[in-house]
Amino acid sequence: MSSILKGNKLSVSVFGQSHSECIGAVIDGLPAGAEIDRDRINAFMGRRAPGQNFFSTLRKETDRPEFLSGLVDGVTCGAPLAFKIDNANAKSADYESLKKTPRPSHADYTAYVKFEGHNDIAGGGQFSGRLTAPLCCAGAICLQLLEEKGITVKSHIYSIKDVRDDAFNADNLFDSEIKLNPFFPVLNRFNGDRMKTVIQTAMENSDSVGGVIECAVLGLPTGLGEPMFDGMENIIAKNIFAIPAVKGIEFGSGFEGTLKYGSENNDDFTVKDGKISTVTNNHGGILGGITSGMPLVFRVAVKPTPSIGTEQTSVNLDTKKEEALTVRGRHDPCIVPRAVPAVEAVAAITVLDLLL
Amino acid sequence: MSSILKGNKLSVSVFGQSHSECIGAVIDGLPAGAEIDRDRINAFMGRRAPGQNFFSTLRKETDRPEFLSGLVDGVTCGAPLAFKIDNANAKSADYESLKKTPRPSHADYTAYVKFEGHNDIAGGGQFSGRLTAPLCCAGAICLQLLEEKGITVKSHIYSIKDVRDDAFNADNLFDSEIKLNPFFPVLNRFNGDRMKTVIQTAMENSDSVGGVIECAVLGLPTGLGEPMFDGMENIIAKNIFAIPAVKGIEFGSGFEGTLKYGSENNDDFTVKDGKISTVTNNHGGILGGITSGMPLVFRVAVKPTPSIGTEQTSVNLDTKKEEALTVRGRHDPCIVPRAVPAVEAVAAITVLDLLL
Amino acid sequence: MSSILKGNKLSVSVFGQSHSECIGAVIDGLPAGAEIDRDRINAFMGRRAPGQNFFSTLRKETDRPEFLSGLVDGVTCGAPLAFKIDNANAKSADYESLKKTPRPSHADYTAYVKFEGHNDIAGGGQFSGRLTAPLCCAGAICLQLLEEKGITVKSHIYSIKDVRDDAFNADNLFDSEIKLNPFFPVLNRFNGDRMKTVIQTAMENSDSVGGVIECAVLGLPTGLGEPMFDGMENIIAKNIFAIPAVKGIEFGSGFEGTLKYGSENNDDFTVKDGKISTVTNNHGGILGGITSGMPLVFRVAVKPTPSIGTEQTSVNLDTKKEEALTVRGRHDPCIVPRAVPAVEAVAAITVLDLLL
Amino acid sequence: MSSILKGNKLSVSVFGQSHSECIGAVIDGLPAGAEIDRDRINAFMGRRAPGQNFFSTLRKETDRPEFLSGLVDGVTCGAPLAFKIDNANAKSADYESLKKTPRPSHADYTAYVKFEGHNDIAGGGQFSGRLTAPLCCAGAICLQLLEEKGITVKSHIYSIKDVRDDAFNADNLFDSEIKLNPFFPVLNRFNGDRMKTVIQTAMENSDSVGGVIECAVLGLPTGLGEPMFDGMENIIAKNIFAIPAVKGIEFGSGFEGTLKYGSENNDDFTVKDGKISTVTNNHGGILGGITSGMPLVFRVAVKPTPSIGTEQTSVNLDTKKEEALTVRGRHDPCIVPRAVPAVEAVAAITVLDLLL
Repeated sequence: MSSILKGNKLSVSVFGQSHSECIGAVIDGLPAGAEIDRDRINAFMGRRAPGQNFFSTLRKETDRPEFLSGLVDGVTCGAPLAFKIDNANAKSADYESLKKTPRPSHADYTAYVKFEGHNDIAGGGQFSGRLTAPLCCAGAICLQLLEEKGITVKSHIYSIKDVRDDAFNADNLFDSEIKLNPFFPVLNRFNGDRMKTVIQTAMENSDSVGGVIECAVLGLPTGLGEPMFDGMENIIAKNIFAIPAVKGIEFGSGFEGTLKYGSENNDDFTVKDGKISTVTNNHGGILGGITSGMPLVFRVAVKPTPSIGTEQTSVNLDTKKEEALTVRGRHDPCIVPRAVPAVEAVAAITVLDLLL
Repeated sequence: MSSILKGNKLSVSVFGQSHSECIGAVIDGLPAGAEIDRDRINAFMGRRAPGQNFFSTLRKETDRPEFLSGLVDGVTCGAPLAFKIDNANAKSADYESLKKTPRPSHADYTAYVKFEGHNDIAGGGQFSGRLTAPLCCAGAICLQLLEEKGITVKSHIYSIKDVRDDAFNADNLFDSEIKLNPFFPVLNRFNGDRMKTVIQTAMENSDSVGGVIECAVLGLPTGLGEPMFDGMENIIAKNIFAIPAVKGIEFGSGFEGTLKYGSENNDDFTVKDGKISTVTNNHGGILGGITSGMPLVFRVAVKPTPSIGTEQTSVNLDTKKEEALTVRGRHDPCIVPRAVPAVEAVAAITVLDLLL
Repeated sequence: MSSILKGNKLSVSVFGQSHSECIGAVIDGLPAGAEIDRDRINAFMGRRAPGQNFFSTLRKETDRPEFLSGLVDGVTCGAPLAFKIDNANAKSADYESLKKTPRPSHADYTAYVKFEGHNDIAGGGQFSGRLTAPLCCAGAICLQLLEEKGITVKSHIYSIKDVRDDAFNADNLFDSEIKLNPFFPVLNRFNGDRMKTVIQTAMENSDSVGGVIECAVLGLPTGLGEPMFDGMENIIAKNIFAIPAVKGIEFGSGFEGTLKYGSENNDDFTVKDGKISTVTNNHGGILGGITSGMPLVFRVAVKPTPSIGTEQTSVNLDTKKEEALTVRGRHDPCIVPRAVPAVEAVAAITVLDLLL
Repeated sequence: MSSILKGNKLSVSVFGQSHSECIGAVIDGLPAGAEIDRDRINAFMGRRAPGQNFFSTLRKETDRPEFLSGLVDGVTCGAPLAFKIDNANAKSADYESLKKTPRPSHADYTAYVKFEGHNDIAGGGQFSGRLTAPLCCAGAICLQLLEEKGITVKSHIYSIKDVRDDAFNADNLFDSEIKLNPFFPVLNRFNGDRMKTVIQTAMENSDSVGGVIECAVLGLPTGLGEPMFDGMENIIAKNIFAIPAVKGIEFGSGFEGTLKYGSENNDDFTVKDGKISTVTNNHGGILGGITSGMPLVFRVAVKPTPSIGTEQTSVNLDTKKEEALTVRGRHDPCIVPRAVPAVEAVAAITVLDLLL
């Protein structure tokens, strides 16, 4: 099984390939009686849609989910909520030549072996970044339900290649003045401009870049998550790796925390307005797998888009001989900006499940 | 639920607290007919046992698992294999004072809230690093079964604080000459000596340090793992976060890969002896969640031991007032060396499950 | 969660309500490379479609599944296979009055409480027998894959009210001469005629009848199923109760076996053509939860259709006063014949999952 | 996997074989802060212990669970609660001869095939009725927690062979005067005497008998359980089949309900003291998989003990030739009375899980 995010109460069963008739998902376990705001779903999904800025792929996707079940007059009824998003503007012909010469660092080769050559190669098949569209739709719904509980999810581009944004901290997390550009969210606009330059350079060189996304969940109660195998870190990590191109995740101070002394990395407790919290948040809001009430903060490493326009070396799967390969078609030089809502969506689904 | 690593075929149900009568686990789903070599289990578990070197805790643990079921004359019979490890030499009195003043960056506070004050505080209760002992025993069993399939798990200390070891590469991974010290495994002994100095300095300052563990699984077939939610990265990540103090995981080039161009991070295909592989291994042996046949490589961030001897600020949970806290008792200034076998154990359990 | 049949390898995520835009399912985990014969799916689904005989509901359903994903040129590609079946000819108005006066022995009341009045009442919502259509489609696909493994599923109407058909036995199970009428399968046509008379009488009295379905799975290998909680009986039972109106299940001699002495109910072993089997099959092909290689036989109790045309006593959920209720609309006086393919479908999905 | 009852919040991981060092279980997910009364556990487990009456096996089992973890001063602490029950008085020699000549209608043969001859044959290994001891211990704990929520589980021997007790009805379910003999619970003592005569006759003939157990769960709220695959019937059925020798389950009027007209089997609604209920309870407290607030009633078919003293025909697994077999050792002529607490235990675990 592969396409099911199965939580305690909530499950999201994703379906579709890049060039199948449509893609979509079935969300099971949503509480009945929740009004679903389609405009907000569309707005959220617009953040991952291509064509929002100069460097994203030219493929035109309207990405309007069509709801198939689970709603009565726009309100959840307790039955599984299913929706589909039509695939349009697909150019399968572009991909035919890739069938026997897998693209480096794509899933073409592993899928070929696993599915014995029957995998859908067109557009990356089920491994396409396009499959984050149903994830985003499901996440947008969960975000609406979370907001009613006072919980918000906030994220930004932490880095593109070696250009870093500011990190989340007590100020910028809660400062209501800070508005993140939904299509290229950074805390510091100057950093954003430098990032865009890096992306543009990569594009001009028919190359690509990756980056890191930082995400925070605010407003969580203390005590969420289970020890050991079902802690917050375990579950969020498991679900985040569903997003294509993700190769790492860290919570709180994460890998950088290993450079510190315990006395630096430990977070002293304090009391504010009768409420217990910690002075710093190197633990990223999770201790022993359980939420501490501090912002849950994690970062996600997104590798450079493997589809690049320069010549690479592949192998012909029939002849087992090396072959030069130049990937054609339309590709983002950097998928990080469009992956941001996907990260938020997965965080929202995961957290809502634990709260139900 | 928290204490169950539930795979497709295999599950490991861990039980025990640091100071309960015993700790242990039930392994369900092992194939029948496997001979279990107890000496090798004991040797493996010895690697996580304390007292192996100058800086680890003084608590004496023999950690000999006693098998309760699942074996007939030392051979698995298809019934769940249960074992227990007695807890001895526990000094509960040391911890009594912590009940109301949680140790910074420990699970004391979150457990207190979650379990409404009923959590077992002694020795960290179920959040203690001691719970990695049953994990290691289960892992040692799985490692034996993996070996029969030609699969090995190899790992080393990648870094302690800012001291780095060499990274795994095509040479040191397969060079049979390289023997890793089981109690302090590094690829380059000189790095190991510098790491020990860092640890000793921390100990002398009543402080602690963390580090990164690099682990590789060799000999995996191509095609293991499922797309999207049940990929290798998803499952390994979920299970690795069961190890206390782990705050991050990355596969292949991971976070550092985000600093590269796609043209640098992509792994060209090649053919060796009629077998398809990749020239480099920035993908860490996983593409699209599925194994590529290259070594599966991941790194795990272990935070500095939160138990340190210097004074910190906690909060009295009754009075809700800040309170100075000096953690007493015996604590490792660095748990990284003892966490290495735990990482291998989790990798072994996870991988064996997918192979059954 | 409710709508997901989650096996080891295979899952079926069903969606839809009786009167939603469509119903359907996502099947995850099918092996890649399987050719899907749509004509046979349509033929199988025709068996549960209404309008096949004089007494079934007049609602016209073509029930042609439209495949949305998971296929490339009619062959499974490893991606989740999703399909939808449009809902047409729905008359929601018929049901509006039931919102506050639940039909006796329907799920109207329990769904109202569970979903706090937000449940979709039209046509029974997600509790409608209509939801067996996606089950049948999924089952038809699994049956095709089972056949390639030499496994067949055979079932008949064992009883309607107090009219019994012959039971399955070694002769009629394997006699290739016996052809079951797909729309009203009985082993003995005379029994079938008497059953139809009973149904017609019920219909003329605006009443309904139930019955028992007997199902056999032939060709299973020995050794399928796990001890204790994941035995064949456990899993089949769990899945069969997904079919609306099912209130009981028994394996082999079942409840009647409790009337026998052990010496009568035990099945002696024998050897035929070098193959071990049992002389009788009171154990229904399962011992200790594990298949014995004998036909897996079980019977399913289907209660009389709760929708009847005579006046009954309900309760107004607002006023909490008793109220007379006459259910209008089109209802089968007996759903047993149309439930037969649903039973086969669930058996097929369950068994295929264990074989993958 | 086989030995894990995995609920939403609660799991019970059972281990042990009839003649392993001990048997036991790990219960994960119990709420913290629950005081566990060991005397009541022992009393409950005494009901399944042998030697309570003239016909049960002579094997002496004290069955005192020893708690290994999960408790602090007798109160649950949120960590998995593990316990073991020592196996004593085992006579493995009795079973050696059975290794190659499987007992008819036992799991000897299927286990032999599944585990390729490595299964533990002694005393039935993991298929032994002895494994209901840990189930009963877990159930006894859950019953204590259910009682605090006002929920009770009541059951009686519904039939032994063809001797029936009265059925549960509105009177005897709620009449506090009716006290059931814990070791041979019947509603009508006269029926109980006749049942005992039947058992004694079987015993004198070296034969065995089976029967039916009726179980009711009282005090459940309305709205428990999920539609389709996770309804109350699905889950209870799945778990009940974990009890050895169970071959059928029915809810409410069950199989007998198929003999009625819909107008007879439907349960009219009524209002009592402002509370909605039904006049009759043919639906057994479940509609659409969801509890209705009426008593949840089900019956379980227990086959005649397959171990009988008369000669039967087996097959030598080596020579594949038929062989006469006379099962020696100590065997209950009827296990129904001792299975009653196991049924209650499974009901309690299942229901508690849904309430957490």
